Amino acid sequence: MSSSFGRLFRVTTFGESHGPGVGAVIDGCPPGLPLDEEVIQRDLDRRRPGQSSLTTARQEADRVEILSGVEGGRTLGTPIALLVRNQDQRPGDYADLAAAPRPSHADFTVEQKYGLRPASGGGRSSARETVGRVAAGAVAARWLQAVCGVEVVAWVEQVATLGPAQVDPATLTRLQVDAHATRCPDPRLADAMSEAIAAAQADGDSVGGVIGAVCRGAPSGWGEPVFDKLEAMLAHAMLSLPATKGFEIGSGFGGAALRGSVHNDAFVARDGGGLGTATNRSGGVQGGISNGEPITFRVAFKPPATIARPQRTAGYDGTEVDLIGKGRHDPCVLPRAVPIVEAMAALVLADLALIQRARR
Amino acid sequence: MSSSFGRLFRVTTFGESHGPGVGAVIDGCPPGLPLDEEVIQRDLDRRRPGQSSLTTARQEADRVEILSGVEGGRTLGTPIALLVRNQDQRPGDYADLAAAPRPSHADFTVEQKYGLRPASGGGRSSARETVGRVAAGAVAARWLQAVCGVEVVAWVEQVATLGPAQVDPATLTRLQVDAHATRCPDPRLADAMSEAIAAAQADGDSVGGVIGAVCRGAPSGWGEPVFDKLEAMLAHAMLSLPATKGFEIGSGFGGAALRGSVHNDAFVARDGGGLGTATNRSGGVQGGISNGEPITFRVAFKPPATIARPQRTAGYDGTEVDLIGKGRHDPCVLPRAVPIVEAMAALVLADLALIQRARR
Amino acid sequence: MSSSFGRLFRVTTFGESHGPGVGAVIDGCPPGLPLDEEVIQRDLDRRRPGQSSLTTARQEADRVEILSGVEGGRTLGTPIALLVRNQDQRPGDYADLAAAPRPSHADFTVEQKYGLRPASGGGRSSARETVGRVAAGAVAARWLQAVCGVEVVAWVEQVATLGPAQVDPATLTRLQVDAHATRCPDPRLADAMSEAIAAAQADGDSVGGVIGAVCRGAPSGWGEPVFDKLEAMLAHAMLSLPATKGFEIGSGFGGAALRGSVHNDAFVARDGGGLGTATNRSGGVQGGISNGEPITFRVAFKPPATIARPQRTAGYDGTEVDLIGKGRHDPCVLPRAVPIVEAMAALVLADLALIQRARR
Amino acid sequence: MSSSFGRLFRVTTFGESHGPGVGAVIDGCPPGLPLDEEVIQRDLDRRRPGQSSLTTARQEADRVEILSGVEGGRTLGTPIALLVRNQDQRPGDYADLAAAPRPSHADFTVEQKYGLRPASGGGRSSARETVGRVAAGAVAARWLQAVCGVEVVAWVEQVATLGPAQVDPATLTRLQVDAHATRCPDPRLADAMSEAIAAAQADGDSVGGVIGAVCRGAPSGWGEPVFDKLEAMLAHAMLSLPATKGFEIGSGFGGAALRGSVHNDAFVARDGGGLGTATNRSGGVQGGISNGEPITFRVAFKPPATIARPQRTAGYDGTEVDLIGKGRHDPCVLPRAVPIVEAMAALVLADLALIQRARR
Repeated sequence: MSSSFGRLFRVTTFGESHGPGVGAVIDGCPPGLPLDEEVIQRDLDRRRPGQSSLTTARQEADRVEILSGVEGGRTLGTPIALLVRNQDQRPGDYADLAAAPRPSHADFTVEQKYGLRPASGGGRSSARETVGRVAAGAVAARWLQAVCGVEVVAWVEQVATLGPAQVDPATLTRLQVDAHATRCPDPRLADAMSEAIAAAQADGDSVGGVIGAVCRGAPSGWGEPVFDKLEAMLAHAMLSLPATKGFEIGSGFGGAALRGSVHNDAFVARDGGGLGTATNRSGGVQGGISNGEPITFRVAFKPPATIARPQRTAGYDGTEVDLIGKGRHDPCVLPRAVPIVEAMAALVLADLALIQRARR
Repeated sequence: MSSSFGRLFRVTTFGESHGPGVGAVIDGCPPGLPLDEEVIQRDLDRRRPGQSSLTTARQEADRVEILSGVEGGRTLGTPIALLVRNQDQRPGDYADLAAAPRPSHADFTVEQKYGLRPASGGGRSSARETVGRVAAGAVAARWLQAVCGVEVVAWVEQVATLGPAQVDPATLTRLQVDAHATRCPDPRLADAMSEAIAAAQADGDSVGGVIGAVCRGAPSGWGEPVFDKLEAMLAHAMLSLPATKGFEIGSGFGGAALRGSVHNDAFVARDGGGLGTATNRSGGVQGGISNGEPITFRVAFKPPATIARPQRTAGYDGTEVDLIGKGRHDPCVLPRAVPIVEAMAALVLADLALIQRARR
Repeated sequence: MSSSFGRLFRVTTFGESHGPGVGAVIDGCPPGLPLDEEVIQRDLDRRRPGQSSLTTARQEADRVEILSGVEGGRTLGTPIALLVRNQDQRPGDYADLAAAPRPSHADFTVEQKYGLRPASGGGRSSARETVGRVAAGAVAARWLQAVCGVEVVAWVEQVATLGPAQVDPATLTRLQVDAHATRCPDPRLADAMSEAIAAAQADGDSVGGVIGAVCRGAPSGWGEPVFDKLEAMLAHAMLSLPATKGFEIGSGFGGAALRGSVHNDAFVARDGGGLGTATNRSGGVQGGISNGEPITFRVAFKPPATIARPQRTAGYDGTEVDLIGKGRHDPCVLPRAVPIVEAMAALVLADLALIQRARR
Repeated sequence: MSSSFGRLFRVTTFGESHGPGVGAVIDGCPPGLPLDEEVIQRDLDRRRPGQSSLTTARQEADRVEILSGVEGGRTLGTPIALLVRNQDQRPGDYADLAAAPRPSHADFTVEQKYGLRPASGGGRSSARETVGRVAAGAVAARWLQAVCGVEVVAWVEQVATLGPAQVDPATLTRLQVDAHATRCPDPRLADAMSEAIAAAQADGDSVGGVIGAVCRGAPSGWGEPVFDKLEAMLAHAMLSLPATKGFEIGSGFGGAALRGSVHNDAFVARDGGGLGTATNRSGGVQGGISNGEPITFRVAFKPPATIARPQRTAGYDGTEVDLIGKGRHDPCVLPRAVPIVEAMAALVLADLALIQRARR
């Protein structure tokens, strides 16, 4: 509890980084959607460790197998179970964890909550848990694109103190984002970000950053007041990701400093009929319901807790120790977080789209 | 869908600002808790309009009636239904809404979603919907205090560009917060905030701001990985509030700029046994589970969309109009948002506490 | 937990028989449905005590008030809160309950579960709790009729050993059912049933029976394999009613004795296209999904536990006592159970209809 | 939707009989429970086809693999994913299904609901779907036994017109049930049942029957009024099984014929303290809450729809055909239904036990 997310398009993830495998079961994907393993593999490859020198050295092919719910290349409307077997397990790397919990990692809280210490330390807190999210999100994204014409694009907006990246959310593509190893599509910043990550790694340290994201093509009417507003579901989804510390929709914290006369988005007649807004400080959402404008949001990621430098901290017994991180961890999760953020956004939107379809 | 929140401590709210009343049903409150209407009324009075010159002129006594679930001054363990009747309804104020949706309000999206235009414009998007939340949150807070020794305190940290307030989250009390009409406990800022709100009102305008909050006394072990992490549930709860644009836990967006060696919270032996952390950039949460430190978070509120100044915008038919806001609305929601944020935090914590109790 | 039922058309009931009132909140009723208090009152009047000499002498006008979710005679798509105030409370009737739990009543189990003894004994186990179900079911039935052309009709099929009633489920109307105080539409049995109930009452005793029901007009495709099959949801709904002991769909327990070649429902071409079945032992459901035939089911009710005759039983302290029932209770719940069974069936169907609408 | 069942002990099943495999994910199993594949395999072997001449000739080793949630022989408190690969697939057996839906099978309704025809006809309606239930139920049963001292035993009570079996629910063991291939522990009936099944098979026909079950050792206090009463959850669980047509708790339909003075279960002082009941017509449940007595219930199964004899029925296009069943199907599902009923009962009880633990 609780490894499930969503109501009508519902995903349940499973798996430890040091067990046989990780995966997801999607319940509620509509029938008849063209789907095969390649659609899912594409997004898993974007999340996969070992893509570049910026990411962890852990090598995982991360090949997905569809266990159910698809026949003859189309979804049946039944649960779609997805399995990715683990390959490069080295539990020995975690032997030192027996004595002291890693600072700002989940070792301590997992032990407090469950009364045990998994071999991997934080158990399901591992970034590897997101494999199931990305696999499921790929299916949601497929449905959104095929049936609703909706696409989600995320990018690296800030690394350490470098940012924000300047991008045009109206036109940015995943191809443009993936063109640079950092997944920052602003050419003025991307190389500096690479260098900042490399410098941190050289120092045995880590850096955080911010992901920006946009959902384009969503019609008005998605989002369920009052508790399941679109931005509430997005915030829930994003803050459920490992290492996230903040979420903003539209103008976010910056909007809090403005006056209403400046912040309000005036309506304008759209070409082709209907109303749009002249500005989009609302981030595509008003009263928790999409208004037809691009949905824009940002997610803050802290620097990874596992670092190679010695850290002075207390062991489980209270005695001070100098802890040195082992294991293979990213000095910066931002580049790999891009497909993960996209996946969670797709899961939110697919679910809210289905709920709205039931209504009218 | 969906006006319910929580799993084991579950609240369902109901009511329109221009109908007979608003309220909530709480399902899952444990039996035997001392409870009467005064406990709830106290928080409703803190949320009530008309408390000071800073808030809307709408007059509502907001007297709560307990309809069920309490007998002889104690909860029965059955649903607790709470009703607050509306008194000061003036639907005529909204007659102009027939022609044009108010910018950045929910008039347009509600019409798009439900295919109709409620008399009040945005229907359940009204701040009045939060009456039910505050009433239910008062019950959750009562249980948290009586059974778990947990308390939640929120305060106004920023109004417009004024802030952040300097407070000591370890000791701050609701009494201190309520001492000033702004609910900003930083004496260097409170008066300036009052003036900024008054100035905006004089201009027929509105201002936004930021609420800070702390939950003290929560033990380690609350929060359900992977999708219902403590910070994910808080983010969901806060972004479900009207006018919110952002959420941060602990270091938040600022933490994204730091290196891991700086950001990590080293463990230290606690007096009396167990481990604490020397710093609290984690905001009391690691891996989605509380670690026993104070849980700290911030919520950004945009300036209210309804302003008295004319706004150039488009009517439903696409023709441009100058819209002038009527109705009675706060120039700044921050002071009244304090008990609302506290209520939602209490609902999240009570729910996660019960779920963890089931486990061990 | 748990006073809510349904996913997309979701009802939450509240209220004790000896508190201020009982009611329900419906979340998820689609917008634009014509609705007023009279539609709901009609079904409440059919459930109301004191309708005839066959029912409890408790006098309750049971007037419903719509607190939210309806404006100008149409649903808003927001939560519909319904309140019925209690009037004829006589908690003194229950004073004897302090010493001994009533046999086969919920006094003992409620005390064991919640650690307290409500003034009314069984708390929410009271038949009065069904007021909220009937009110909510009336709204569901309204939607089913207006949007889907579906109607639900239940009737008394057996009282004590009298039955089964012979009826034509294809044509039976609520008017025909209500024509006799027993709500048994078989003229050969109805008077004998009245007499059996009166005889039991004269003996200070009670009798049970069976309700039959049919849902007509449901299209094929409703019901959610594998756990929320149509018959599973109906069984859940019916066994959640006070005093129920059994549920059958279609051929039921009798079908267990047949061979497959006899039991199978052969398909036949329907006039106007599509397939129907020549027989309907399936009860309108195959594989948990409606097949377009009438949905037929039966529900067994035990005799009411509260009887006027002295019963030898043990007090809370284990000593034997002769317990004599007070309070005002029906000698037979069957006549009043008819609208309650109809209400629960309507709630199940409305929910499954909405879920299927989301899919295609 | 919806392949999940339960709230705190929640199982999600997946898999088609003609795809790569079937399985389940359990979310919410408490941490620290000793568990390995053998515990699960034992129950799967009892469900497995090909155990005796009474069951389908389909050969499946049904070896389970634990993919997650268990480390060092103990549960982690994280999702437990269980996979059983399919081996003996013969989709060619179903080629004839293209023209006509099998009577009383799910071919037609699945096509109506999802708009497609899976190779296997009824998709998830296959009895093979219950593999995931049995695997998950084995884990629930393990927890119930280890932590609560609860055990569930089911048996074949009736086959065709033979029955009811005479058993002592207070002492019956699974070993006694499994001693005969029919799983009927009444020696006066078991052989006759075997013969009845063999006779039906020889005729190319099938027979139905009734399963009886008892849950022993459950304390008072389990079950959640008002909608999730213990008997309501059991009824939901049982009617979600393929081929079920009825459910009874305690006295069931027979109880409907009795008077209250006969039906009521008088309380008696228990040796060792507390109250029990002298009789158990309530079936261990009063007001939806367990009372500490054995929980007894019965489930009716129809004869399998697939038979070898030709059946006159209509094709999808409405023309009449003589359909002859192929595939490998049980002439009677009762013997194999025993572990399936036990599994579902265990899932219900584990869930309700956890919910009650949260309360007190």
